[in-house]
Amino acid sequence: MSNGTVGDRIRVGVLGSGGKVGQAIVDAVSASDDLEFTVGIDKDDDRAALVDAGTQVVVDFTHPSVVMGNLEFLIANGIHAVVGTTGFDDDRLDTVRGWLGEQPGVGVLIAPNFAIGAVLSMRFAAAAARFYDSVEVVELHHPHKADAPSGTAFRTARLIAESRAQAGCAPMPDATTSSLDGARGADVEGVRVHSVRLAGLVAHQEVLLGTEGETLTIRHDSLDRTSFAPGVLLGVRQIAGRPGLTVGLDELLDL
Amino acid sequence: MSNGTVGDRIRVGVLGSGGKVGQAIVDAVSASDDLEFTVGIDKDDDRAALVDAGTQVVVDFTHPSVVMGNLEFLIANGIHAVVGTTGFDDDRLDTVRGWLGEQPGVGVLIAPNFAIGAVLSMRFAAAAARFYDSVEVVELHHPHKADAPSGTAFRTARLIAESRAQAGCAPMPDATTSSLDGARGADVEGVRVHSVRLAGLVAHQEVLLGTEGETLTIRHDSLDRTSFAPGVLLGVRQIAGRPGLTVGLDELLDL
Amino acid sequence: MSNGTVGDRIRVGVLGSGGKVGQAIVDAVSASDDLEFTVGIDKDDDRAALVDAGTQVVVDFTHPSVVMGNLEFLIANGIHAVVGTTGFDDDRLDTVRGWLGEQPGVGVLIAPNFAIGAVLSMRFAAAAARFYDSVEVVELHHPHKADAPSGTAFRTARLIAESRAQAGCAPMPDATTSSLDGARGADVEGVRVHSVRLAGLVAHQEVLLGTEGETLTIRHDSLDRTSFAPGVLLGVRQIAGRPGLTVGLDELLDL
Amino acid sequence: MSNGTVGDRIRVGVLGSGGKVGQAIVDAVSASDDLEFTVGIDKDDDRAALVDAGTQVVVDFTHPSVVMGNLEFLIANGIHAVVGTTGFDDDRLDTVRGWLGEQPGVGVLIAPNFAIGAVLSMRFAAAAARFYDSVEVVELHHPHKADAPSGTAFRTARLIAESRAQAGCAPMPDATTSSLDGARGADVEGVRVHSVRLAGLVAHQEVLLGTEGETLTIRHDSLDRTSFAPGVLLGVRQIAGRPGLTVGLDELLDL
Repeated sequence: MSNGTVGDRIRVGVLGSGGKVGQAIVDAVSASDDLEFTVGIDKDDDRAALVDAGTQVVVDFTHPSVVMGNLEFLIANGIHAVVGTTGFDDDRLDTVRGWLGEQPGVGVLIAPNFAIGAVLSMRFAAAAARFYDSVEVVELHHPHKADAPSGTAFRTARLIAESRAQAGCAPMPDATTSSLDGARGADVEGVRVHSVRLAGLVAHQEVLLGTEGETLTIRHDSLDRTSFAPGVLLGVRQIAGRPGLTVGLDELLDL
Repeated sequence: MSNGTVGDRIRVGVLGSGGKVGQAIVDAVSASDDLEFTVGIDKDDDRAALVDAGTQVVVDFTHPSVVMGNLEFLIANGIHAVVGTTGFDDDRLDTVRGWLGEQPGVGVLIAPNFAIGAVLSMRFAAAAARFYDSVEVVELHHPHKADAPSGTAFRTARLIAESRAQAGCAPMPDATTSSLDGARGADVEGVRVHSVRLAGLVAHQEVLLGTEGETLTIRHDSLDRTSFAPGVLLGVRQIAGRPGLTVGLDELLDL
Repeated sequence: MSNGTVGDRIRVGVLGSGGKVGQAIVDAVSASDDLEFTVGIDKDDDRAALVDAGTQVVVDFTHPSVVMGNLEFLIANGIHAVVGTTGFDDDRLDTVRGWLGEQPGVGVLIAPNFAIGAVLSMRFAAAAARFYDSVEVVELHHPHKADAPSGTAFRTARLIAESRAQAGCAPMPDATTSSLDGARGADVEGVRVHSVRLAGLVAHQEVLLGTEGETLTIRHDSLDRTSFAPGVLLGVRQIAGRPGLTVGLDELLDL
Repeated sequence: MSNGTVGDRIRVGVLGSGGKVGQAIVDAVSASDDLEFTVGIDKDDDRAALVDAGTQVVVDFTHPSVVMGNLEFLIANGIHAVVGTTGFDDDRLDTVRGWLGEQPGVGVLIAPNFAIGAVLSMRFAAAAARFYDSVEVVELHHPHKADAPSGTAFRTARLIAESRAQAGCAPMPDATTSSLDGARGADVEGVRVHSVRLAGLVAHQEVLLGTEGETLTIRHDSLDRTSFAPGVLLGVRQIAGRPGLTVGLDELLDL
C-alpha cells in the first residue's frame, strides 16, 4: 500500500500531535523498536507531510469537527488509520465504509476505548456472567468525576444484563428488606452498580461474580492517563492486516 | 479465686453448650492446649455442675432471658465470665457492676462482637480516618441478609464520622453532579456506605481511605461462622487478670 | 435415550453417594427445581438400581479403581455421565471413546476441575496474557496444604507462558539486582508464582497482569468445599446435548 | 518564636526547592489555605532569605552533605524544621538534640518516611500481628525496582516479628512439604514476604493476617510520587507545638 517502508518497522504518523494525548502517542511510538515515527500534524500543519514521509499508519486523536476530513484524506492516500476521536454515529461509519470501498487494501480502526484492560474486563465479565447467581459492579474514581456510575460501568452492567438475559438466568437473589437509601447501589438493568469516589484514586473497576461456595472478581486499574497507549500500538501493528472498517478494540483482541 | 486449678491450664465451662455457637466454643476450648473443658450446661442442666468441676472461667452464649441469672450465679461462686449474649443495656450493666462490687476478684467480659478482625478494623479505620481526605465503606455479604448496610458497617461509619468531627476534618470532596439513584451509596453521617450482596460470600468489609497520591485499605473477611472463637478464647485467657466489668473486646486488644 | 423421563426434569443418579463429595452432589441435585434425584449408589450397592429408577444422567465422584467399570455399565445402559473421578490417562480416554462409539447418543463429560471460577480464571488469564508486559500469579491457601505452588497455579502459569510464547511476547521486565532468597517467587516457565499460606483462608488465586499505566487482576475465591457443585450441575444439564466424549469443563462454558 | 506571623497562616519555606520533591512541596504548601509559602532556597541561594521572609517552619528535602548545616542555621534562628533528608545516624541525632537544648522552643521532625499510609500500615500490622496465627506480606512494585523485598516490606516484617516475639506467639503453621524454589517467598525473621514486579504498578503493599475463620488485610497503595506531601504538611502544622526532636512520623499520628 504505502511506498515508504524502511526495513521491517511500521512508519507511523500522528494527527493531533500538539495535544496531551497526541504527544503521549508520539512518545509511545518513538519508544517502540518495531515502529518508526514519521511526522506529527497539528491544526495548522499540512497533512501532505504524512504522505511525503512515507507514512503507513496514522493515529488520529483529534476532534469530531476535523476527523472526517482527516479520514477522507488518509484513505485516499492509501494510509491506514487508528482513530480514538469521538463522535462517530452510524452515518459517519457508513461514510467511512463508502470511502474504504474505493480503496480495498486500506484498514481503519475506530474505537471508543483503547484501554485494553477495560475492554478485556467487559468481555470477560459478559462471558462469565451467565454462570453465576449474582453479579455486581463496583467502580472507583477520583472525587473530581462528575458522573456516577462511570460510562464504563454503565456499559459493563448492560453487557452483563444482556448476557444473562440471553442465557435465561434467574433474577439475582437479594433478601434485603430493610435498607438505607442508596445502600444497595444503582440498578442498571437489574445489575447493581456502586460508585466510590476517593481522593488518591484514578480510575478502577471491579466486577464481582458469585455462586454457591465461590466468587470470581475481575478488576481493572487505570493508574495514569497513558493507559490508552498500549491499545493504540496494538491497533497500529494490526491494522494493515485488517482491511476495511473495524469498530472497537475487541475485534483485535481475538478472544 | 477458683479452687479447681489443675496444673497451668485454665478450667473452662460453657453455658448454652447445646446450641451451634456453644458447641463451637466447646470444640475450640477442647482443642487448646492451655485450656481444659470442664462441663457444658444446656437449658435443663444444673449450673452447680460448673462449681463442682472446679470451673474457673465460663463462656455464656445463651439468651437475654437467662443471662442475668447465669451471671449472678457465676459471680456469687467466684467464677469469671466471658459473655456474648446480647441484650445488655445500661441498667443491666449497672446490675452486673453491683454484683461484682461484692466479689472484687471476679472479672466479667461482655462484648457485642467477638470477631477480633471486625474490632481491629473499626479501631484502625477510626484511627486513620482523620488523616485522609476521603473515607468510604464497602460491605459485602451473602444474599440472604435482610439489612443493608450491615450493623458493623453502620458502627464503622459512625466511628469514622466521629473521629473526623473531633479532628475538625473538612467534608469529603465529591464533584458528582449527575448520578443514578443509589450509585453513591448510603450516607451514614457523611460517610458513604455501599452494600454488595453476592452468592458465595459470607461477611466482608472494606474501609477505603484516600488522600492525594495514596490510599489505605482495611479489609476484614469472615469466612465462616466460627470467627468469634479466637476472640472468645482471648477473653477466656485474660479475664482472670481483669477483675470487674469489661465491656467490648477492644479493651483486651490493648492497642 | 432413557425411558424414565418424568415431565421436564432431568433424572439424576449419583455414584459414590456415601462420600462427602457425593453427598454434596445429592444435596445440590435435590435442591434444583429442574433436576430430580433418583438414586445414590455406594460401594456395596447394585448399579442396576440406576437403570430401574429411569436415571438419565449419573454423576461419578468415585475412585480410579472403579470408575472404568462404572462408565462401561452406564454407557451400555444409555445413561449419560458427568465424571469428576481422577486418574484418566490417554489410554483410559480412548477406551471410553471406544465404548461411546457403540452408543452414539450417549454423552460423557470427564473433567479434572469442576469449579467454574477456576476454569474461567485460567481461560481469561491465558487470553489476556499476551497483551501485557508482565504477568504474575499469587495463590493463597490454608496452611495445611502440602504443595506450593498449588496445582491450579501451576496449570495457570503454564497456560500463560504458552499463550505468550505463541504470541511472541518479550520476556517480562524485571530490574531486580539485589534480592533475598525466594522474594521473587517460584519461576514456572518464566511466570513468577507466589504461594501464601494463611490460617483462615480456603483456596484463592489472583492473576495480575500489567502494562504501562494499567493493570488487570483476575481473582478466584473458593470459600468452601462445595464450589464444585455448580460446575457439576452445569455438566448434568448439558451432557445429554453433547453426545460423545467431552474432556474438561471449558468446552461447556462456550467462551 | 518567629516574628513574621501574618494572621493565622503558618509561614513555610523550602530548602531544596529546585528538586522534584522540593517543587512538589512548594506546590502543596501553596495550595493549602492555612499555610503561606515564603521562599524557596536552592543550592546557590542564601539561607538568610528564610529569616528575612519571617519563615516559621522550613521543610528540608536536600542531601546528607548539607542537611546538618541547614539544621544548625534554622535552629539558631528559631525556625522549626520538617526534614525528609536521609542519612541520620545516632551521632547526627545527638548533635541536633544538642543544638535544640540551646533553643528550647524550637521543634525538629526528622522522618525516613512521610507517606502517612505506609506509617499507619506498619503500625496497624504490628498491633494486629499477635492476634493472628499467620501473617504474610505481599509487596508489589514497578519492574524497575532493584531490590526485593522493598525496604518498607523489610521494616514491616521486622515489626511484625518483634510484636509476635514480645507476645510469645507460636510459630506460624505451614504444612508445606513439597515446594518449588521460591514459591513460599523470602523469610524475614519468620515472616514470609513476597515481591511482585509488574509493569503499570507504582508502590503497593498488603499485609495479610489470618486465624480460624477470618482474615484481616491492610493494604497501602502509593499511586504517585507525591504521596509524601500530606505527611509533610501534617508535620508542618504540628511541629511548632512539639519542641525538641521528634523522630518518625508515628509520633504525630497519635494512634
